[in-house]
Amino acid sequence: MTKIKRQQTLTNRVTILGLGLIGGSWALALKRAGAVSEIVAWGRDQQRLDKAVEMGVVDSATTDMAAAVAESDVIVIATPLGTMSDVFNQLVPLVSKNVVITDVGSAKARLVELARETLGESFPRFVPGHPVAGAERSGFEASKADLYENRRVVLTPVSDTNAGALSLVEQLWSCCGAELVTMEPQTHDDVLALTSHLPHAIAYLLVDLLVQQGGEDSRKFAAGGFYDITRIASSSPEMWRDIFNDNKDSVVALLDHYIDGLEKFKLAIAEDDNDSLMKVMQRAKSTRDSLV
Amino acid sequence: MTKIKRQQTLTNRVTILGLGLIGGSWALALKRAGAVSEIVAWGRDQQRLDKAVEMGVVDSATTDMAAAVAESDVIVIATPLGTMSDVFNQLVPLVSKNVVITDVGSAKARLVELARETLGESFPRFVPGHPVAGAERSGFEASKADLYENRRVVLTPVSDTNAGALSLVEQLWSCCGAELVTMEPQTHDDVLALTSHLPHAIAYLLVDLLVQQGGEDSRKFAAGGFYDITRIASSSPEMWRDIFNDNKDSVVALLDHYIDGLEKFKLAIAEDDNDSLMKVMQRAKSTRDSLV
Repeated sequence: MTKIKRQQTLTNRVTILGLGLIGGSWALALKRAGAVSEIVAWGRDQQRLDKAVEMGVVDSATTDMAAAVAESDVIVIATPLGTMSDVFNQLVPLVSKNVVITDVGSAKARLVELARETLGESFPRFVPGHPVAGAERSGFEASKADLYENRRVVLTPVSDTNAGALSLVEQLWSCCGAELVTMEPQTHDDVLALTSHLPHAIAYLLVDLLVQQGGEDSRKFAAGGFYDITRIASSSPEMWRDIFNDNKDSVVALLDHYIDGLEKFKLAIAEDDNDSLMKVMQRAKSTRDSLV
Repeated sequence: MTKIKRQQTLTNRVTILGLGLIGGSWALALKRAGAVSEIVAWGRDQQRLDKAVEMGVVDSATTDMAAAVAESDVIVIATPLGTMSDVFNQLVPLVSKNVVITDVGSAKARLVELARETLGESFPRFVPGHPVAGAERSGFEASKADLYENRRVVLTPVSDTNAGALSLVEQLWSCCGAELVTMEPQTHDDVLALTSHLPHAIAYLLVDLLVQQGGEDSRKFAAGGFYDITRIASSSPEMWRDIFNDNKDSVVALLDHYIDGLEKFKLAIAEDDNDSLMKVMQRAKSTRDSLV
């Protein structure tokens, strides 16, 4: 099944800024593939960083960003979306002309514009990326070398993205078994708004309805289908605040459509309009049954 | 783990009207527990009924309702909610004074009123029930003797429900390993509206949004979290039409609250009101994390 093959080194030093599940798993996978010589982590908490080195997730780690990115060939920004502006600004004076920068953020269009505004001459070597790998768990402790096997990684290069930088990032992902997809940044955001961001909003609000309207009995009965459908409401609120902020326009537009659909469905129930109910549910069922 | 013990026969002949997963599994479980002497099925399709007998799900089966309920001690109505009025009317002239009637419908308040209006003298021996067992699959072919082990079965007796009838139905469930819960019919409907009926509406509408707003890319990306959250949108539209009809008031009221919550969340995103977003998501996450 796995597409991984041990191979020649693709690059020497990779630096991961903000080591969590996503960066840690990429580090483990790159090492396993023999694709890089050295992986350095940067973070805010030296104790946590020391633990990551002890666990063998990365080779070394420091809270000093200048030291972390010195002589680095590839910089992976894996900090929360809300911190990207700060990180870009800190990076600008530190990076050399040839370094490739990439990220793993869940929303891309605004981020690409931010990168264009702040990275200046380095912008063409910024390759925006988003590994679409489930991450209910977080922290580098949960890292797995096989997290990206057969999982999609979306890259959203723009017209001025350097072809060599794009190619290197592509190889760094494909050697980990990932399936690469290239999209326009806004297309990525529209697709993810529908398939991921809106479902998270829906799940949070459904649990909040239980908080507002449900008694003790309802909580007991929430253990079945309700429990499954709201699994993603256990995701990090901070992360999702940042995603909703960064993908505001797509998410708001979709919420409008979704609310409109719910209103019509509600009216159909209230007015015994069974034809409309059946039309919506049959269309939905046949589409759901057809998803792989 | 299982609470089942082989025991003395509780009753002689049980007749199941409308043999599907729910009735078929109860039949298998009752037989396994040695709780009944004979199980008869009634349905519309003799070929399907013959298959159920061949498979050993029931002892005999007929399309003749009079024959099916003759000399029956307990009649289980497991036909779709939308057919209950017809079935009650057909039953009235056929049932003897001592027969106990129960059902397995997913909505209870309207059904209890319907039963009161149509069953006449037999109404006190009608014990309204709802086994809350996941049923994405359907048909008696999917029946399992252990479907009800450690699953909740809600009974919603009213003040004039006969105590002996209630006790017999309770025993017929508890000998199958079910955990019995007794509620007012309207309380049942409110609890299920929140924990099951609304989640189904939400899932159907989310898939319908994919139909309306999503392109080829979105369908591809719908394989992850979207796929999980919309699993219940593969449920039977006919069944859910009946449930929405029967539990109209609770579902419409909850949809109003839910739409209101979504509107506020949408505004908070649109207006960069991160405090409100965080409040909702943190409250939802902590509640979700606390569900068993």
